[in-house]
Amino acid sequence: MKKSKSRIITLLTDFGLAEPYLAAMKGVILEINPEVNIIDISHQIESHSIAEASFILLNSYHYFPSGSIHMVVVDPEVGSSRRPLLVQTERYFFIAPDNGVLSYPLSRERVKLAVEINRSKYFLKQVSCTFHGRDIFAPVAAWLSRGVEARKFGSVIKEYQKIRFPSLERKGNRQWVAEVLHIDKFGNIISNIDRSQWRLFQIESGASSFCLTIGSHKIETLVENYHQGKNHKLFALFGSSNFLEISSYCQSVAQIIKAKRGDKIKITLS
Amino acid sequence: MKKSKSRIITLLTDFGLAEPYLAAMKGVILEINPEVNIIDISHQIESHSIAEASFILLNSYHYFPSGSIHMVVVDPEVGSSRRPLLVQTERYFFIAPDNGVLSYPLSRERVKLAVEINRSKYFLKQVSCTFHGRDIFAPVAAWLSRGVEARKFGSVIKEYQKIRFPSLERKGNRQWVAEVLHIDKFGNIISNIDRSQWRLFQIESGASSFCLTIGSHKIETLVENYHQGKNHKLFALFGSSNFLEISSYCQSVAQIIKAKRGDKIKITLS
Amino acid sequence: MKKSKSRIITLLTDFGLAEPYLAAMKGVILEINPEVNIIDISHQIESHSIAEASFILLNSYHYFPSGSIHMVVVDPEVGSSRRPLLVQTERYFFIAPDNGVLSYPLSRERVKLAVEINRSKYFLKQVSCTFHGRDIFAPVAAWLSRGVEARKFGSVIKEYQKIRFPSLERKGNRQWVAEVLHIDKFGNIISNIDRSQWRLFQIESGASSFCLTIGSHKIETLVENYHQGKNHKLFALFGSSNFLEISSYCQSVAQIIKAKRGDKIKITLS
Repeated sequence: MKKSKSRIITLLTDFGLAEPYLAAMKGVILEINPEVNIIDISHQIESHSIAEASFILLNSYHYFPSGSIHMVVVDPEVGSSRRPLLVQTERYFFIAPDNGVLSYPLSRERVKLAVEINRSKYFLKQVSCTFHGRDIFAPVAAWLSRGVEARKFGSVIKEYQKIRFPSLERKGNRQWVAEVLHIDKFGNIISNIDRSQWRLFQIESGASSFCLTIGSHKIETLVENYHQGKNHKLFALFGSSNFLEISSYCQSVAQIIKAKRGDKIKITLS
Repeated sequence: MKKSKSRIITLLTDFGLAEPYLAAMKGVILEINPEVNIIDISHQIESHSIAEASFILLNSYHYFPSGSIHMVVVDPEVGSSRRPLLVQTERYFFIAPDNGVLSYPLSRERVKLAVEINRSKYFLKQVSCTFHGRDIFAPVAAWLSRGVEARKFGSVIKEYQKIRFPSLERKGNRQWVAEVLHIDKFGNIISNIDRSQWRLFQIESGASSFCLTIGSHKIETLVENYHQGKNHKLFALFGSSNFLEISSYCQSVAQIIKAKRGDKIKITLS
Repeated sequence: MKKSKSRIITLLTDFGLAEPYLAAMKGVILEINPEVNIIDISHQIESHSIAEASFILLNSYHYFPSGSIHMVVVDPEVGSSRRPLLVQTERYFFIAPDNGVLSYPLSRERVKLAVEINRSKYFLKQVSCTFHGRDIFAPVAAWLSRGVEARKFGSVIKEYQKIRFPSLERKGNRQWVAEVLHIDKFGNIISNIDRSQWRLFQIESGASSFCLTIGSHKIETLVENYHQGKNHKLFALFGSSNFLEISSYCQSVAQIIKAKRGDKIKITLS
């Protein structure tokens, strides 16, 4: 039987780039599989922010070739009884601590198999209590990329941790409350309003105009691209991941509005 | 006929490293060409700074092997009518929005072909209005790396946008005004004075000494390397890209002088 | 005779990620050996900090496959008479300026050969006075990865620069003074107390409890993993590199304690 080998392991962590931790994991992977292509997703996740990591993965994982292994190490409970998790979906493998960090991507995938990783023959010989990224997840990802079957790494499980994607709150007939999911490097404020929900709002309410309120700021213009918003101080648009963003042309909105993750955005249709 | 395949795609963007944008582009590239070697030039370009990106590319692109594909995504006008551009020179391929960002490297290259990218069969199926890096530039770079000829991606064009490299201003017989091009991580202040111009000044003026004035600071010492400047608070030297830098031994000059990009530097020869 | 080729060159510098310097080095390497796998260890070393670079390398180099080439460019004296150094150990090659930056890893390796790099045929044609990383170290690493023997790059030497690993100071029968080696991205304060020393202290002193004092803060709890420390404001644990860390659950200790590298930590056993 042909073994399915993976060429790509992606890494997403909250390690930053100034530490030896990331290189240690890469060394471990390359020791086991020198042929694999390691691609960094990001290592700038806010320390311990499971939700931020899940959001970044949601917006990047599905561009990778089928068979890619996505490994996430945001692991505040390392060393506790939280389980190491391996999930196989129709297109990908995911390796992470079982703390909900895979929730957003898995909500869009068809899960074929979930495994609690516990076969220590695939771990480093000495497993520390503080760095399973290096001692468990990295070697497991590397062996998986060499074609070891997912179920070989442990016990099949049915349930694993999930975190809730922040949902919109209905406040009235034509009013909802959304929230800030992420502020990107350009200062765009990305909300949890996705394009299909927005269309639904408009159909349901029959409204032709809208107002977003965040802090003391109001946004009433929706454009297609940043350039179109050139003559507006603030505008909204659907960004590249299909979430509604509040933006400003060549300027950081986050500096104008002083928003942060979790801040509320009121939507009023009329 | 043997197709010319490229092994290397370099990436230069203003995306930062905390976003999903860079990984999305890498995923797209690897989906099309799993064999290509993706090398990051930098993703820390100041948001929307076409001049900074052009300067960073100028000082790095020519070290890469012949045939490398240099892809730049600093694209404030994404989604507008600005064109996606592909330029083939004797040694390299360049892919970028047509906004002048390729100007400094192209000024040193012999251009063989410029193409307005418009064959959508090489794009992602859905092209967003806000992220052509992922939806157009990345797949085009990947197909190009697989050996598709440059002219297949669109229409041959003659003209494309250029930005001017900041030139020295003559102020008198032995006086010029230069400017700060870049401040590097070490705090070195890099000017737009290159080594050959400097020699010309000296020959023309017959001068044996010089004074650089920036803010209230004067620099009158030219050394060969940082170590030679050890006993001077401030000194000038020609850096690794042959531009005159103002520097200080193991100290950030930019913190002493509080300079920023675009600041003027007066040159007086005597 | 079979040439021993290396697949991996790791890079550790103080260049940051916003400059063209790193990409220039990678271009030079790939021009000479397009097949080599370049892995970044870190480029966020504090400018000119030889000790920090040596510490980061110590905690990452040994995870890489045998035959890997570790190249370090933290080089405040570039262009002076400091020598370029190549060291071959039983498992690895190291390339760096001879300024002590390799000291911590070499203290754990069996050195087979040390070479002062001086064969200019392996350098770039033009060697600048300010960037040997690009002009000397990168091409030498690339040729080495292609199988050129270490001794071919210059003259065998016996001595090279060393820096001292900060040692513990004995202050009394049951008292020592340690110091802060590194503060990581999570705010953990990593000391120079390693696990075997700690055991020795306990055996020697027969003590059953301890107190670490740093600034006005006292730590009297030792746990196995971060999660176990959940109910303590501050605690100590042996981190993934076997050094004693002061930590706090999901919080930056460095912000609570305001510590910096070199700060003293008093150890009292009782």
